[in-house]
Amino acid sequence: MARETGDLAGVLAANAAFYMAFTARDAATMDRLWAERHPVACVHPGWPPLLGREAVMESWQRILANPDSPKIRCFHERALIYGAVALVICHEILEAGLLVATNTFVREGGLWRLAHHQSSPVAEGALVAEEASSPLKN
Amino acid sequence: MARETGDLAGVLAANAAFYMAFTARDAATMDRLWAERHPVACVHPGWPPLLGREAVMESWQRILANPDSPKIRCFHERALIYGAVALVICHEILEAGLLVATNTFVREGGLWRLAHHQSSPVAEGALVAEEASSPLKN
Repeated sequence: MARETGDLAGVLAANAAFYMAFTARDAATMDRLWAERHPVACVHPGWPPLLGREAVMESWQRILANPDSPKIRCFHERALIYGAVALVICHEILEAGLLVATNTFVREGGLWRLAHHQSSPVAEGALVAEEASSPLKN
Repeated sequence: MARETGDLAGVLAANAAFYMAFTARDAATMDRLWAERHPVACVHPGWPPLLGREAVMESWQRILANPDSPKIRCFHERALIYGAVALVICHEILEAGLLVATNTFVREGGLWRLAHHQSSPVAEGALVAEEASSPLKN
């Protein structure tokens, strides 16, 4: 139980660090947050999947360097733990609307590092229905 | 290496079984394909996240029972293995357009079972760029 509680706190902290690096346009930190020894992939909203660390990090460098990139805020994070892999499902608020993201983390040397990020649009009105109907049951 | 090859084939077979159950509107098989002993979640296109087996399976029952649910075909599957967890990233073709899905599988009793599915729209023109620019490097 203690291990699981630690995993939960750790992966939520890693998820928060990801959005902090995004908001701060901090490409060096963003790079450190992604896995080095496991496969990485990324599905930005509307983009085709990017596979491999080189393609994924190049996309983040371009996004973080672009002054027109959206401001982003993450909320309502829920972490699901699968041993050395964890998912964090959360909402992302941007000026253009609301997204749902799943961030996949993998343990590397005691750290939770990003292996995959997929973000996709959701209807804002759907949030109210979600709060009423989707408790985390397992 | 043999283990990894077996995992790859196994998880791609589980992914194919998921789309086969979807196409066949086979709710019983769909239920068996989802994990029983790990957390499950699902992000259908445009929906808020569903968390917990009950909410996820209820959504599939409704989708599979609805005669207006879209026909779907999956292609260009790529599997990424993380020990007892695997991601399959693939395209989904529906009449309404093209989606990118990430299906997360977890090993349970020697089987790869679904833990998470997220599907989101992608611009069709983006596929050509993807083929040229996103080799699987790790």
